[in-house]
Amino acid sequence: MNANQIDKPLCNCGVVGVYNHPQASLMTYYALHALQHRGQESAGIVASRPSSTRPDRRKFSIHKAHGLVLDIFANEELLLDELRGDAAIGHNRYSTTGSNIKRANIQPFYSSYHAGNLALAHNGNLTNTISMRSKLSDEGVLFQTSTDSEIILHLIARSREVTTMGRIQDALRQVRGAYSLTILTDEGLIAARDPHGFRPLCIGKLGESYVVASETCALDIISAEYIRDVQPNEIVLIDEHTLRTGEIRSMQIDDVTPRPAYCIFEYVYFARPDSRIFGEPVDKVRRRLGKRLAEEAGMLPATPDGKVVVINVPDSSNTATLGYARVNETLHNADTRYEIGLIRSHYVGRTFISPGQANREFKVKTKFNTVRGVLEGQQVVVVDDSIVRGTTSKALVSLIREAHPTELHMRITSPPITHPCRYGMDFPSKEELIANTYNLDIEAIRESLGVDSLHYLSVEGLLDAVPHDNGEGYCTACFTGNYPVPIETAANKMALEELG
Amino acid sequence: MNANQIDKPLCNCGVVGVYNHPQASLMTYYALHALQHRGQESAGIVASRPSSTRPDRRKFSIHKAHGLVLDIFANEELLLDELRGDAAIGHNRYSTTGSNIKRANIQPFYSSYHAGNLALAHNGNLTNTISMRSKLSDEGVLFQTSTDSEIILHLIARSREVTTMGRIQDALRQVRGAYSLTILTDEGLIAARDPHGFRPLCIGKLGESYVVASETCALDIISAEYIRDVQPNEIVLIDEHTLRTGEIRSMQIDDVTPRPAYCIFEYVYFARPDSRIFGEPVDKVRRRLGKRLAEEAGMLPATPDGKVVVINVPDSSNTATLGYARVNETLHNADTRYEIGLIRSHYVGRTFISPGQANREFKVKTKFNTVRGVLEGQQVVVVDDSIVRGTTSKALVSLIREAHPTELHMRITSPPITHPCRYGMDFPSKEELIANTYNLDIEAIRESLGVDSLHYLSVEGLLDAVPHDNGEGYCTACFTGNYPVPIETAANKMALEELG
Amino acid sequence: MNANQIDKPLCNCGVVGVYNHPQASLMTYYALHALQHRGQESAGIVASRPSSTRPDRRKFSIHKAHGLVLDIFANEELLLDELRGDAAIGHNRYSTTGSNIKRANIQPFYSSYHAGNLALAHNGNLTNTISMRSKLSDEGVLFQTSTDSEIILHLIARSREVTTMGRIQDALRQVRGAYSLTILTDEGLIAARDPHGFRPLCIGKLGESYVVASETCALDIISAEYIRDVQPNEIVLIDEHTLRTGEIRSMQIDDVTPRPAYCIFEYVYFARPDSRIFGEPVDKVRRRLGKRLAEEAGMLPATPDGKVVVINVPDSSNTATLGYARVNETLHNADTRYEIGLIRSHYVGRTFISPGQANREFKVKTKFNTVRGVLEGQQVVVVDDSIVRGTTSKALVSLIREAHPTELHMRITSPPITHPCRYGMDFPSKEELIANTYNLDIEAIRESLGVDSLHYLSVEGLLDAVPHDNGEGYCTACFTGNYPVPIETAANKMALEELG
Amino acid sequence: MNANQIDKPLCNCGVVGVYNHPQASLMTYYALHALQHRGQESAGIVASRPSSTRPDRRKFSIHKAHGLVLDIFANEELLLDELRGDAAIGHNRYSTTGSNIKRANIQPFYSSYHAGNLALAHNGNLTNTISMRSKLSDEGVLFQTSTDSEIILHLIARSREVTTMGRIQDALRQVRGAYSLTILTDEGLIAARDPHGFRPLCIGKLGESYVVASETCALDIISAEYIRDVQPNEIVLIDEHTLRTGEIRSMQIDDVTPRPAYCIFEYVYFARPDSRIFGEPVDKVRRRLGKRLAEEAGMLPATPDGKVVVINVPDSSNTATLGYARVNETLHNADTRYEIGLIRSHYVGRTFISPGQANREFKVKTKFNTVRGVLEGQQVVVVDDSIVRGTTSKALVSLIREAHPTELHMRITSPPITHPCRYGMDFPSKEELIANTYNLDIEAIRESLGVDSLHYLSVEGLLDAVPHDNGEGYCTACFTGNYPVPIETAANKMALEELG
Repeated sequence: MNANQIDKPLCNCGVVGVYNHPQASLMTYYALHALQHRGQESAGIVASRPSSTRPDRRKFSIHKAHGLVLDIFANEELLLDELRGDAAIGHNRYSTTGSNIKRANIQPFYSSYHAGNLALAHNGNLTNTISMRSKLSDEGVLFQTSTDSEIILHLIARSREVTTMGRIQDALRQVRGAYSLTILTDEGLIAARDPHGFRPLCIGKLGESYVVASETCALDIISAEYIRDVQPNEIVLIDEHTLRTGEIRSMQIDDVTPRPAYCIFEYVYFARPDSRIFGEPVDKVRRRLGKRLAEEAGMLPATPDGKVVVINVPDSSNTATLGYARVNETLHNADTRYEIGLIRSHYVGRTFISPGQANREFKVKTKFNTVRGVLEGQQVVVVDDSIVRGTTSKALVSLIREAHPTELHMRITSPPITHPCRYGMDFPSKEELIANTYNLDIEAIRESLGVDSLHYLSVEGLLDAVPHDNGEGYCTACFTGNYPVPIETAANKMALEELG
Repeated sequence: MNANQIDKPLCNCGVVGVYNHPQASLMTYYALHALQHRGQESAGIVASRPSSTRPDRRKFSIHKAHGLVLDIFANEELLLDELRGDAAIGHNRYSTTGSNIKRANIQPFYSSYHAGNLALAHNGNLTNTISMRSKLSDEGVLFQTSTDSEIILHLIARSREVTTMGRIQDALRQVRGAYSLTILTDEGLIAARDPHGFRPLCIGKLGESYVVASETCALDIISAEYIRDVQPNEIVLIDEHTLRTGEIRSMQIDDVTPRPAYCIFEYVYFARPDSRIFGEPVDKVRRRLGKRLAEEAGMLPATPDGKVVVINVPDSSNTATLGYARVNETLHNADTRYEIGLIRSHYVGRTFISPGQANREFKVKTKFNTVRGVLEGQQVVVVDDSIVRGTTSKALVSLIREAHPTELHMRITSPPITHPCRYGMDFPSKEELIANTYNLDIEAIRESLGVDSLHYLSVEGLLDAVPHDNGEGYCTACFTGNYPVPIETAANKMALEELG
Repeated sequence: MNANQIDKPLCNCGVVGVYNHPQASLMTYYALHALQHRGQESAGIVASRPSSTRPDRRKFSIHKAHGLVLDIFANEELLLDELRGDAAIGHNRYSTTGSNIKRANIQPFYSSYHAGNLALAHNGNLTNTISMRSKLSDEGVLFQTSTDSEIILHLIARSREVTTMGRIQDALRQVRGAYSLTILTDEGLIAARDPHGFRPLCIGKLGESYVVASETCALDIISAEYIRDVQPNEIVLIDEHTLRTGEIRSMQIDDVTPRPAYCIFEYVYFARPDSRIFGEPVDKVRRRLGKRLAEEAGMLPATPDGKVVVINVPDSSNTATLGYARVNETLHNADTRYEIGLIRSHYVGRTFISPGQANREFKVKTKFNTVRGVLEGQQVVVVDDSIVRGTTSKALVSLIREAHPTELHMRITSPPITHPCRYGMDFPSKEELIANTYNLDIEAIRESLGVDSLHYLSVEGLLDAVPHDNGEGYCTACFTGNYPVPIETAANKMALEELG
Repeated sequence: MNANQIDKPLCNCGVVGVYNHPQASLMTYYALHALQHRGQESAGIVASRPSSTRPDRRKFSIHKAHGLVLDIFANEELLLDELRGDAAIGHNRYSTTGSNIKRANIQPFYSSYHAGNLALAHNGNLTNTISMRSKLSDEGVLFQTSTDSEIILHLIARSREVTTMGRIQDALRQVRGAYSLTILTDEGLIAARDPHGFRPLCIGKLGESYVVASETCALDIISAEYIRDVQPNEIVLIDEHTLRTGEIRSMQIDDVTPRPAYCIFEYVYFARPDSRIFGEPVDKVRRRLGKRLAEEAGMLPATPDGKVVVINVPDSSNTATLGYARVNETLHNADTRYEIGLIRSHYVGRTFISPGQANREFKVKTKFNTVRGVLEGQQVVVVDDSIVRGTTSKALVSLIREAHPTELHMRITSPPITHPCRYGMDFPSKEELIANTYNLDIEAIRESLGVDSLHYLSVEGLLDAVPHDNGEGYCTACFTGNYPVPIETAANKMALEELG
């Protein structure tokens, strides 16, 4: 059991691309580290450099492994020599452990085809995987991984289009679902984002170098300047032409761009607060989530001294808690204090030994401890970003109760999670979601968590808090079950699993 | 270069002891994890269990290695089988890398002598190491490590006293300096604290088990209840007698207990905010440090909108910053906002690749990023706990400046550090301390750091903020040069280094 | 530098297949260990077991890594649980180190295609790799390795034939060169050998289980009984039908079977002496090589005491030396003694530190030492199996000279090597072969090696010594340059290298 | 289970010392590799170099670990930088696995004492360990290992003598039993051998450098010239004086040198055949053992064709088998052929997976295979050096029987082993020795092994075969129970084990 494994959605990946930097792999490594929160189980880098023998082909090299970015690439020779080159792409991933065949699934994928070298990193999930795999298999395609991402590679290789951009457009027109991609070929760096734009993807510039990354925090770490997002439904090509003219050539995937379906959970939990995604800084949105929640949740029961202590769950709800605390004070005239009542350990190993019954309790204590003086004898409000299974929340409540607050209230800056994500996040099964266990009966959930009151943000409140001058469309499927892109059936999904 | 290595004192250890618990090593492991902040380079556990052949001897087993606690012991079989037993001691340490002989220095130390088994874990530094080593060597003692701690083992083994407690008392009367010790023998668990009580050490109880640890956060993680501190000048014995009667037998080291010399830097930086040491919760003291600093530092220059943004350096100055912000608002009528302007990465690898000039900048960016929206166009105050070399501070200032605050002020919740610690912390050499580089000229330091104003807490302010109903004595040597216990000369120190 | 790396051809692989054994992976592991001499750098096993969900599909699992077989699979859980199943194939390989893309080249290869699972292990080299890769690439095929073996997988997947056997036949009809294959599908275990039969491949039986392996020593280790060789130009299918009826179904690859081209170097050096290949025990052939060499080499110069000491180079020339010694004694009336004059170290690490000039000398001394008493003052004949670059031979001669023989004669049980192998062995480049360096001038080679006389076996002698009731055809290309199957040109080969 | 673990005595160590060589650690590493057969579980090197600060002190560094020499030191930087120096000692050891406290037992041991640095490597076993440990413990000595070797270190450190040689002499006069030592101090390299000279120890010269090693094969690998043995009862000092004058100063340990007690098993099995020990090349003695055995064993039963095939067990009985075969032919008029009937695998991993019943059979097959053509239908004699438990012999007999010899006879070039060694070899317990199981009834042993006849060499034959101009004394305790030096009782031994 990973000590880091807390009750949050696990699988959402990070992608990076660097073009025209003398140490492209080193820049990719820093950028992947900044995106480590998007996937902690494996990472990889593919680099390319000019070939000494053929002007139209480059030498590609690759390294990928299980582990954290700083550990996998903790080798100067690896980054600067084996992976030397002026272009690179990288990928972070949370992969399920288990069979070795699945180890083949660590990205980026590299292969060669008639037009040369091809490497790809993918964040998101395709939704027509079954039918596409079946169609390609019938045509004689071999699959060496059990991922949906490999489909895109084969479609590019089999396209009859004559340009790389044309082949990629052709390929992406055939797949459905969520994808933010970085692709490295002999010609240059390509980035693409699905027509709905589920996952973020941005472009930056560092001197004469170009950088593509899932979030802007990956630009910041290498001091690259944010230029713009890759738009939903857009493929961009960064190549020699870009270096000469400054122009990033762009192409649409589908002829008509649908209404966007930005993943609203990126704002709630996934993205880093110091990133700017979907046109707005994440920390700003989180603060609004906290404020709106305070408005919706209303007044707390009066206490003799009128004091309320509001604490965050470090570090996922830090900013939202600040927003909550401020509105609570001004709106409800409460003597509200934002306090640090939970301390988070910085030292997390790969595994955590915890035999026997006390498992969950110890796991949470390995990560958090309370500051008793802050909580004892107080009316405490703990603000968290979301509840999935509820297991960590329960353990946290027990932990806080040990410090003897007079009351303990929980506020959640998102609505109850009721549906699995089909576009890139890995929630537990529908049955395991606490909101479903109790049939959305908030009082029953409150009781099971052991808090004195519980308030979730409403879907309306959530939608009000996110920016709306960016195309006005969000995917809220995990809260509402409204899936913007249809999914192939579960029966077929089992057939796929048989393959790996 | 360890990515985690930021410009703070490095070496201060954590010690643990557990008695009468069926999984003593597992409890020690959790406790050591809670003390991980006191030393991240190596750790070890010695466990003991009854012997099947001799009633007066126990079987001892040991495991120690470089790395984090959760990684070193990431093996259920190791903790539950190899290290099985009902008593254990443990140690965390920041050891300098390098020669293998020094690897012998990882604690706890284990050895056998005429009275049986003996294992010891030591936090602190002795000050008469040279003369004691020389004296013992002359008597034919072999030294297998280059640590001061080994001296205590030999003194115990060579004592003519007839009881274990007597031998330990005899040994400790001969050494000077700082020590918080846990000792495991065939008879039981012994804990001791030097007459000045430099380092913290507390006793807790978990059902019928006893726990000794450097800080109370190590009791919390295993839900042990705090009983009391081991007092300065006290040796305690937890054994069968304790189990039968509930009495923890105690003995003084020196006949006369001197004025305490609690390490004030434990309050400033070292101890975890959720611990209670020297009679007071650490977070409470830190809040007072921030408040007092706000009082001392006075008003900031007026800005057009009258707004001040106060940010912490996560996570070392979190609580102190809250205190600063509150007093600044009330006292200086400022529209002060505590904000989260720096984000700290949770993912830190063992090494960090950063070739070439940009080294320091990248290192700090691997750990921190700014939240631009919070800082841009604002009058920003960053509150930190201390400045050692100033290297990290400079890099942080550069990082914050990239987010374009209108002004950037730095407030430090401790006085300038001017002297090395001789009692267990590992500061850089005197010459490297930024306060000495600029001869305590605050204006020159300010300029070198690149901030618009700089204010350190005064020594008086510091002493006012710490508790004074606990015996009223602190070691402030790193700020004042007043060393409570004299040190053997540097010339001799070099002789010692020659040995290892 | 691998301490084991002596001046012999390096790359020749070993393949294994096991069918209908409850611990198929364990049997494969033993068999691969017995074939360890055929490749020491990497190994892998693919296992399959019935699927719980689909009767026509099996669950496949895979593990492959760099290292020796006993080390890679030194994990009971891996072999018995992760790789559990009743069918398995395995592969040993000497892979060149370097880029990670090449790490993808470790076999067996696994993939899924429209007809299900497909895994393949290949010993040999295809000769129409360039044109086939090019053709497939043009059709949209992605290559994920830089091996020729992957071509076969794609051809099988793309075949329009309806049965597995038909698809494999279809695929193999399109490739040229050398291959001994084991293939695992959902239906069963398939083995195939190219029409010329360059590399050995045999079938054995162990109770109700079937085993396919490169050499019979792999049958011996698991006590399987040798049944027959897979014939040149033959594909065999071992499946449920085989279990029911005892019949191994068989199919020809090409309509006409050409004259065989058995690799004669397998008899000279590669195969283990306890194996039976191409219809004859290897040790028997090696003895004949030694005998024939003694006949050809003629009498040694007379010595005062008439004594000749004949020594082997352990362990590659052990048996041949026995043959040489016996004939020398009977034919040349010499007082010939077979003696052990060189001792070989059993302990060989993965790397060997030998900085500076003395490199080669130390390397040979890490592996061999002389028995001085056997050599001093004697007329010594050292019998070796072959000379490639001559580097090891020179170092061995120096080593033996240190023991002061009066004379030192070298006898080689094969002809001078003058041409690279194109069918699976990895010789150094043509220029590096000592026979080419000296333009086949034996006297010049003798002088460069520093021996008093040198005699190679003639090609005729070599051909006389190998069995001739087995189809009467050998590949002697490395000695004669007569390549039985034409090779695509070097220009194209460079193009291929560009890919990986 | 180590795949290499065959039924032979396991524990006997190798020691090395190098003085005045610019790469002393590198030379020690080669020498330890040559002595790898004397211990395969762990190894270590201690090096020393001049100190920059004190003329009378040197800098010592150490590296030791579990594994083979070539693997432990597979790091050029480690050998040439970390362990740089002009003097070094090294040690090979077969350590039992298990508790970590025992890991502290890996040699060489390093410590510092009043006279400076002290490192020691020890081959052999002391016999008054209990009383010496007890005496030293009573005097306040701490033991950090459970080895007898540590006693010597403490005795040196506690000696009142004023010179290093004097202190070592003083220490060695107090211990009893077997020891061949290399010691490194600030002054130079010291070597010592116990008064009976149980274990070998020799001195060599390489240019201006001096080398001390357990066997001469360690001199050969670095091309050092053999000078002489360290004599029984002798301490030698190689230091600056030696470099200036060429004189190796020497001192006696006890005033009276007793009759030697050279370990006769070194000749039978332990020492490498290419070494010269106790005044004679090992291979020469082994040949005589084989010859004498052939004389004693007499004629084999006549076969129809009069042919006898004699095979060795590679590689321990190679030379002895040659001797046996020759005498058998000449003396018994048999048509005797020395043949290679068993092939030994070169590839041995650290562990060997062999679950279930077939364990022993597979283990032997992982190491050996038969050459069927040599054995089938023949009267076979297998010559081995010794039988301990008999387990490997039984498995070998089964293996050979699978090749269908008509008869199988076993000849052993040593007498039945009936007693444990107390001077450095690790035999199984007395009860497990097959000779004791069957009460020395050779016919019963023969039947249990499953051979047609069995003949051991007599003790007289053994003594006749070893050299007798070297002082005429051997320890034959393992065959006869005559222990030259008395042993402390088993009861005390258990007390010792309690300590670790």
